[in-house]
Amino acid sequence: MVIRYPNGKSYSPPVSNPKKNKQSKKDYSFSNRGKTLEDEINETNEFYLDRNIAVIHKKPVPIQIVNVEYPSRSAAVIREAYFKTPSTTDYNGVWKGYHIDFEAKETENPTSFPLKNIHPHQVEHMKSVILQKGIAFLIIRFSSADKYYAVPYSMLEEKWKRMLQGGRKSIPLKEFEQEAIEINTGYSPRINYLEAVEQMLGK
Amino acid sequence: MVIRYPNGKSYSPPVSNPKKNKQSKKDYSFSNRGKTLEDEINETNEFYLDRNIAVIHKKPVPIQIVNVEYPSRSAAVIREAYFKTPSTTDYNGVWKGYHIDFEAKETENPTSFPLKNIHPHQVEHMKSVILQKGIAFLIIRFSSADKYYAVPYSMLEEKWKRMLQGGRKSIPLKEFEQEAIEINTGYSPRINYLEAVEQMLGK
Repeated sequence: MVIRYPNGKSYSPPVSNPKKNKQSKKDYSFSNRGKTLEDEINETNEFYLDRNIAVIHKKPVPIQIVNVEYPSRSAAVIREAYFKTPSTTDYNGVWKGYHIDFEAKETENPTSFPLKNIHPHQVEHMKSVILQKGIAFLIIRFSSADKYYAVPYSMLEEKWKRMLQGGRKSIPLKEFEQEAIEINTGYSPRINYLEAVEQMLGK
Repeated sequence: MVIRYPNGKSYSPPVSNPKKNKQSKKDYSFSNRGKTLEDEINETNEFYLDRNIAVIHKKPVPIQIVNVEYPSRSAAVIREAYFKTPSTTDYNGVWKGYHIDFEAKETENPTSFPLKNIHPHQVEHMKSVILQKGIAFLIIRFSSADKYYAVPYSMLEEKWKRMLQGGRKSIPLKEFEQEAIEINTGYSPRINYLEAVEQMLGK
């Protein structure tokens, strides 16, 4: 932010927290297109948590720490670390006694969702969750159409098997429209995915 | 490992993976005291997962990433990051349709467990999980006595309130013996904490 004074001088307020500043900027825009799907889900989860609707969190990014410095009188600093491939989904928690487990992905592709965005061990993980009577699904955002879908594990499994059998490597938008559950969006909560989960459960 | 031959010479096999070697070394000891509680719980969770008993994972350590290098032709390297205070518990997952959520701590103190080892927001988190009909508890290891206890959230809440009202800042071992559930240990699974959860549920 730069304030221009009549005398021609300019003033830039000190930026104490660049991240927060960026966030406030985003809030001024009329659409939510500047936000990532992760931001939107985190906001929705905060909404659910504040109102005692559900306790669902994003898991931290898994990293392999190689080197840590311990400067005296200040916090430990990680100086060398690497990103690890996640072995589970990114989000989980509990809602009305149900274990909730999902992965969220957005695609720029206007007509289909490429399955290469999902890791095989994530599919395995979701299958294990279902075996334990948890609820597992994907949230997919088609950015260009600004549409959001909840994909029950059963649907993902079917498309995944089709791919393994030599079929197509993506799920066409048309199949989302016919077989997935569209998620309603709004101001608060941003994407009410638990409504879609209720539909999955036939409630 | 050192093999002593009759000719008096010794042979040390090359160490290809120092971490794995350390692990094998540990396996030769008669007690499991060399292992951390985290190692033991991770082994137990692998046991549960392999046998389709439960899907429970440790969450990655939450860190704040400040600087990442992207060298060409090799993996991204995190060059500056800081540890963040966890806002939830370390372990969660699903077992027979139940959402499982717990924190694990060990203490060297032979007579009591200091409550300063638990963060206030972790207690808040566990309370929220209980409100959503999940199962929340602590696993506490008394290292010197080599005893393990499962502490249901209800017991923790009582002791926490006592502390907030000016009472003692720790839970004495005696109260663990009387009110918590002792966890059986063995070779495999190492610490069968789901047995203790079954007892909590009155099964």
